[in-house]
Amino acid sequence: MKINVVKNVLQANDIVAAKNRQVFQEAGVLAVNLISSPGSGKTTLLEKTIPALADQGPSIVIVGDLQTTRDAERVADSAFQVTQINTGMSCHLYANQIAESLPGLELAQAYFLFIENVGNLVCPGEFDLGENLKVILLSIPEGDDKVAKYPTVFRAADMVLLTKIDLLGAFSYDLARVENDLRKLNPTAPLVPFSATTGQGMGEWLGWLAEQRKTKVGAQARFIHE
Amino acid sequence: MKINVVKNVLQANDIVAAKNRQVFQEAGVLAVNLISSPGSGKTTLLEKTIPALADQGPSIVIVGDLQTTRDAERVADSAFQVTQINTGMSCHLYANQIAESLPGLELAQAYFLFIENVGNLVCPGEFDLGENLKVILLSIPEGDDKVAKYPTVFRAADMVLLTKIDLLGAFSYDLARVENDLRKLNPTAPLVPFSATTGQGMGEWLGWLAEQRKTKVGAQARFIHE
Repeated sequence: MKINVVKNVLQANDIVAAKNRQVFQEAGVLAVNLISSPGSGKTTLLEKTIPALADQGPSIVIVGDLQTTRDAERVADSAFQVTQINTGMSCHLYANQIAESLPGLELAQAYFLFIENVGNLVCPGEFDLGENLKVILLSIPEGDDKVAKYPTVFRAADMVLLTKIDLLGAFSYDLARVENDLRKLNPTAPLVPFSATTGQGMGEWLGWLAEQRKTKVGAQARFIHE
Repeated sequence: MKINVVKNVLQANDIVAAKNRQVFQEAGVLAVNLISSPGSGKTTLLEKTIPALADQGPSIVIVGDLQTTRDAERVADSAFQVTQINTGMSCHLYANQIAESLPGLELAQAYFLFIENVGNLVCPGEFDLGENLKVILLSIPEGDDKVAKYPTVFRAADMVLLTKIDLLGAFSYDLARVENDLRKLNPTAPLVPFSATTGQGMGEWLGWLAEQRKTKVGAQARFIHE
């Protein structure tokens, strides 16, 4: 009985997600779902990324949080548009919350749509929002055992950013363990050591986004924007 | 419709949780539900706490994880008994998972039952397991804005341990902000700076556990154990 309920919720979510995906494709925007624990650096990543992408094109941000608009405020200056979704009790965004926020956004004017999910390393991995890519952030202070313990999100990842890499020396941390655990679940997603403080990994991240936009959005985007 | 499903799940959970609570009371064991993000230090806390409590009495540990038995292995030597629950896709423990694991445990022999929840700062706060106390761990590297952003668990907290306090100097961190945000949600839960590395806060934590056991378990426990 319980399993049936969960299945129905997931199926209903997937139908809405497919519609979102079509809207993103028609608008020619690359949609990126950012997933991590609380405090792994999602908002800081956006603070650094959006200005650095400005010469490629504008970014829209949808921020999910249980409460507060703090994260939305932090990117409000650099993003083209920002929408905050307060999920209340829900530990992840649903596709229908994204769908409901789309009419207020000028998607066809943007090159990138970043969806900052609720801070949670479990549930967001199960709920498709219609995004092109799932990017998982795992920060060094969380420890080197987390990939194997939270396989759902890492299996679904298109890229894994190992954030706060500048803190590596402050912990007993086995990078090879993280890589080995990731490869068992996900043979292809790039694992990128990243620091918003030192800038390490930023070039790889930005280059990957540009490449992914070209591949995933393609001719449709060129027709609209160029 | 969706809200009704959630309500039913929560109500069903609460019925089982009430039964668990009665079992704990009859066994004279203090049940503590440990909640935090991944990597905030729940297992490390138990590694330090269980040996330090040994002169008061034995501890049983129930560990919830999506996958792996790593955390259970880390406390297997010091705990009286350890049970691992692999939740698969679920981002929190349910009361019925606790109920199902109780027949294998000699609760009446133990003074403390620590339930290490799945690493998640959202959902575990909504699901009563029948515990006497909810202890929330928030680590310094997660940042000083997390209390207001994840109000559910902090509202429900009986104690908040501010873990990895030895790393305070490595971050821009406003302790007063954390305390102010917590007090708006929860006027009474002690906020204890804690470090498993330096031992800071350990005395307060152990003293609180002993006091809580006396208050919450009381005469029933003395009758069985002493």
